Amino acid sequence: MSAPLKVAIAGLGTVGAGVIDVLQAAAPLLAARGGRPIEVVAVSARDRGRDRPVDISAYAWFDDAVAMAAEADADVVIELIGGADGIAKAVAVAALDAGRHVVTANKALIAHHGVELGLKADKAGIVLAFEAAVAGGIPIVKALREGLAANRLTRVYGILNGTSNYILSNMRDTGRVFDDVLAEAQSLGYAEADPGFDVDGVDAAHKIAILASLAFGGEVNFDGVYVEGIRHVTIEDIKFAEELGYRIKLLATARLTDHGVEQRVHPCMVSLDSPIAHVEGVVNAVVAEGDVVGSTVYEGQGAGAGPTASAVVADLLDIARGLRMPAFTVPTDQLTVMPAADMADHVGPYYVRLSVVDQPGVIADVAAALRDENVSMEAMLQRGRLAGAAVSVVLTTHATKESSMIRALDRIAALDTVVEPPRMIRIEPYSEGTEAG
Amino acid sequence: MSAPLKVAIAGLGTVGAGVIDVLQAAAPLLAARGGRPIEVVAVSARDRGRDRPVDISAYAWFDDAVAMAAEADADVVIELIGGADGIAKAVAVAALDAGRHVVTANKALIAHHGVELGLKADKAGIVLAFEAAVAGGIPIVKALREGLAANRLTRVYGILNGTSNYILSNMRDTGRVFDDVLAEAQSLGYAEADPGFDVDGVDAAHKIAILASLAFGGEVNFDGVYVEGIRHVTIEDIKFAEELGYRIKLLATARLTDHGVEQRVHPCMVSLDSPIAHVEGVVNAVVAEGDVVGSTVYEGQGAGAGPTASAVVADLLDIARGLRMPAFTVPTDQLTVMPAADMADHVGPYYVRLSVVDQPGVIADVAAALRDENVSMEAMLQRGRLAGAAVSVVLTTHATKESSMIRALDRIAALDTVVEPPRMIRIEPYSEGTEAG
Repeated sequence: MSAPLKVAIAGLGTVGAGVIDVLQAAAPLLAARGGRPIEVVAVSARDRGRDRPVDISAYAWFDDAVAMAAEADADVVIELIGGADGIAKAVAVAALDAGRHVVTANKALIAHHGVELGLKADKAGIVLAFEAAVAGGIPIVKALREGLAANRLTRVYGILNGTSNYILSNMRDTGRVFDDVLAEAQSLGYAEADPGFDVDGVDAAHKIAILASLAFGGEVNFDGVYVEGIRHVTIEDIKFAEELGYRIKLLATARLTDHGVEQRVHPCMVSLDSPIAHVEGVVNAVVAEGDVVGSTVYEGQGAGAGPTASAVVADLLDIARGLRMPAFTVPTDQLTVMPAADMADHVGPYYVRLSVVDQPGVIADVAAALRDENVSMEAMLQRGRLAGAAVSVVLTTHATKESSMIRALDRIAALDTVVEPPRMIRIEPYSEGTEAG
Repeated sequence: MSAPLKVAIAGLGTVGAGVIDVLQAAAPLLAARGGRPIEVVAVSARDRGRDRPVDISAYAWFDDAVAMAAEADADVVIELIGGADGIAKAVAVAALDAGRHVVTANKALIAHHGVELGLKADKAGIVLAFEAAVAGGIPIVKALREGLAANRLTRVYGILNGTSNYILSNMRDTGRVFDDVLAEAQSLGYAEADPGFDVDGVDAAHKIAILASLAFGGEVNFDGVYVEGIRHVTIEDIKFAEELGYRIKLLATARLTDHGVEQRVHPCMVSLDSPIAHVEGVVNAVVAEGDVVGSTVYEGQGAGAGPTASAVVADLLDIARGLRMPAFTVPTDQLTVMPAADMADHVGPYYVRLSVVDQPGVIADVAAALRDENVSMEAMLQRGRLAGAAVSVVLTTHATKESSMIRALDRIAALDTVVEPPRMIRIEPYSEGTEAG
């Protein structure tokens, strides 16, 4: 058996402890699979004295993670500190500059600085690996980079934020509003005290920017992601969705179109016939569509110590085995610049909910507004009758250009009989074949 | 860019033509991803003159595929002939003996001779790759071998035969019996003229034997697979399943137990709450459970030219990139001999359907028979009342040892009031946590 693969770990939170636990508990199995032992040699964290669930006394301690990355006697540095900049980035840069492979679970780091770090890794002929940065233990990075490499991928989308999916599932199950469910999720530890990263879509945006780069061979373009969170999703929308055969999910989508790459995170209606509609709670799921393979689906736990450690250690095993892949499928300097498609050019079906005064002629006015902007209605539902009072009307459209939809909604909002701003939720077809775009 | 990876293809049926189509149509993309061009240099098939959808005029032709494997100027030989023995095996052996990598879509070959071929590949330091042999375009071999390599896998199971799943889905949708749906599937080309490989479970058994080897690090043990097909599944069972919250699927399962490795293919009831219950038609799906990652699910097209070519070309790209993995995760000579668990020791819940004379005391007799063999009933349903005539009674049990279940069924079958042999279908829990076994 070859010499051990020596590892230094920066960050000893839940995930860091999880990685050490796996490396200690499964050492003989991992050595057999990797062809050599994996040996932790050094660790660094903020507080040396903190009580931890794993024994780190055998490892060299560094107060300064950046110094460890540069100086420790390690082949690989694992970055588990988090954050796009600051120490996390300094650790990755120091490790790569010192010729050490970098494994990270840090989606913000890769979303913002993946290209810069990839260029450094390529130049040094070493590995930058981030399986754990997207969808936890689901090996989706490897699937896109290797398993589906025969394909021109056309669309990759999924449920990439477990907290948001938990909240939407819970709202549907219990009929409680967003604020209530979020507060409970926070008290249970399923959501952060500052939930914005999760419920406002930023976390999912980091992840879809990474998947888009892997799928389409372009430089990671986080700034090109359209982001809309779930705070405005109402129980009424969730109920209408069910009635129309849909479920509301926070989807992150990357799609090749004639006018550039769409990258978008927003609440979507997905058909109850699609596998992704049935992904509930904190589970993640990704659908990857290729020209040769068709549609493939991947599901699993998207976060937590175990799933994340599973991905980190898989990256370590690849390195131990001598598998060397460019971070983003092709060498970083061959990545294209992906032109970001304008959301105004997005084409797809839409769901719209209106609050209208229940009186004759209202629907005719709405239909005329849609017609004038060339929007084709697919279905319309009015629930309840209450002459002269406000009632809900929902409608779905056939594939429509977003700019037309927006103009039609402006016309509708201006009608005297429409008493609240219209609510619009995009519908994401499971199969690309079912839409005009 | 490095020298081309030179490829010889044995077998030019649907899949062979699909592979050539991808290699021709996506050549620049594949060269960028693989770091070198992939170039077909030679082909072999039974009939040179046959009309084919791809142009093979630029490639050297061999009438004898074995001679091609030994003599062509190729780095890789792709075996797409099929069958466990005969020419397919001779091609693989000749290629490995000549120091050429082998890529195959042949599950029977790997299920029967994987160890012998793996030893040859290891000895020569070359690759034996078979992503296409299991679940078509779903990169499940790579997921087990690399993506989940940090885990002790505990159970791998799935829907691995699209034809059987199509038939079961169609029976449920249309209420038609097995023979009718099979005949239609044959006329539509979804099932072979000789459907035994598919509907009697042999094809799925080949595949689960391969997945078990990858998951548990043991030598492929096809003879250790318990096999039961779907010919005896009735519309009545399908309807009762729905009523009880289940769906009937032909599952292939590999599970680590205290008394060896269970490998089994048989109809199963799976909960409507599990993702796999909603996999309909010719789609394949695999659930892989690990001690660190938890449960992960993979879905996609399990057969056909495109999905199979996607997997074959992914294996080629791995070789082009210089990724070198042992065929079965660890070197073949380190694989253990997996003791096959006896089905009599299987523990799980069961569904039983009885045809009984509708008269007082029948249920008491059945319940006594179960009690006497220590089988705990979970639910019981009797539909219809017809005093003195035969009616159906169905029941489900809590986790029970199969040998006890069989003895209880023998007792029940011997009752005067039970007019047909009892029908038993095993229930496969989605989460291992829910059963005693």
